[in-house]
Amino acid sequence: MNEETEIQHLEPGKKVGLVVVITGNGKGKTTSALGIALRAAGHGMKVCLIQFMKGDIHSGELDSIKRLAPEVELHVKGKGFCGIMGNPYKFPEHRKDAQGALSLAKEKIASGDYDIVILDEINNSLKLKLVDLEQVLGLIDNKPAALHLVLTGRDAHPEVVFRAHTVSEIGEVKHAYRLGIAPQKGIDY
Amino acid sequence: MNEETEIQHLEPGKKVGLVVVITGNGKGKTTSALGIALRAAGHGMKVCLIQFMKGDIHSGELDSIKRLAPEVELHVKGKGFCGIMGNPYKFPEHRKDAQGALSLAKEKIASGDYDIVILDEINNSLKLKLVDLEQVLGLIDNKPAALHLVLTGRDAHPEVVFRAHTVSEIGEVKHAYRLGIAPQKGIDY
Repeated sequence: MNEETEIQHLEPGKKVGLVVVITGNGKGKTTSALGIALRAAGHGMKVCLIQFMKGDIHSGELDSIKRLAPEVELHVKGKGFCGIMGNPYKFPEHRKDAQGALSLAKEKIASGDYDIVILDEINNSLKLKLVDLEQVLGLIDNKPAALHLVLTGRDAHPEVVFRAHTVSEIGEVKHAYRLGIAPQKGIDY
Repeated sequence: MNEETEIQHLEPGKKVGLVVVITGNGKGKTTSALGIALRAAGHGMKVCLIQFMKGDIHSGELDSIKRLAPEVELHVKGKGFCGIMGNPYKFPEHRKDAQGALSLAKEKIASGDYDIVILDEINNSLKLKLVDLEQVLGLIDNKPAALHLVLTGRDAHPEVVFRAHTVSEIGEVKHAYRLGIAPQKGIDY
């Protein structure tokens, strides 16, 4: 930090609970969600992060997110990505887990205990019919006004995009795996 | 976590130090860089994050990143965004600070002390001529083979993209500020 640079502490003129969608085929959606949690914890804000389709591969955040307690809590649901090669679970099992994640999301959103709720991989869960459109729109339409709700995952539904204030689409320009490079710790998981 | 789901601990078949570029006009580049740092800390990896064009607005990560010490260290350089409305500093001051950030980056990369070095907003620093193309390519071309080097910021130079293994371009589909909504704590800073 340059000591001579004046640091401004911003306060928004008007607090608005945003709906934020992070979608697209490129790398960085869950990573970005983790960054939101980290940044918000620095403001002392309460964050609930629910992962809809993780749970079968050990990823670094499982350990380090604990250092952001009590502001940030992480709930890992699901049995890995539905339908990808090597995943041994059948559709009904994935759907059951995603429905459990959805119930938890509903409860957490309604509780009023959080400033930010992040639903990681909910967009592709919807695309894969693990959750239903009406369920996801219900979460958005009934959220407390001041709550920021973040929905990540590829293939965001147009109705979800329509309801969002901010939508980022992460495109894949290049990816190391197309060069035959195996997933790398710290970057890919 | 579902207790019955088996968690795999992956180890890459071959460790490759990646060059990762996160660019585009959409929201989430720095946020994604923060997520990389958080995830890597969970693996016990050492991360050096250098911000090239921040320093004038208090952002949540300034406080919470300390919870990721000693694995993660943050160096905030610069005097805010060069050329944007309300920033009072002149080009030579911005260039001087960016050159300082670049020297620090060179030193940290060469040290061999880190698994990941993240150069936040270096792409736009290059676009704005605060640093030179040869300088940035020099960092990439001379990095230790095992080091992951992450370069963020809009307008990534084609020569940088050419050298990268993984490039994500974050497009802005929608942004709350276009609705007249002020920046919101925890989401925008």
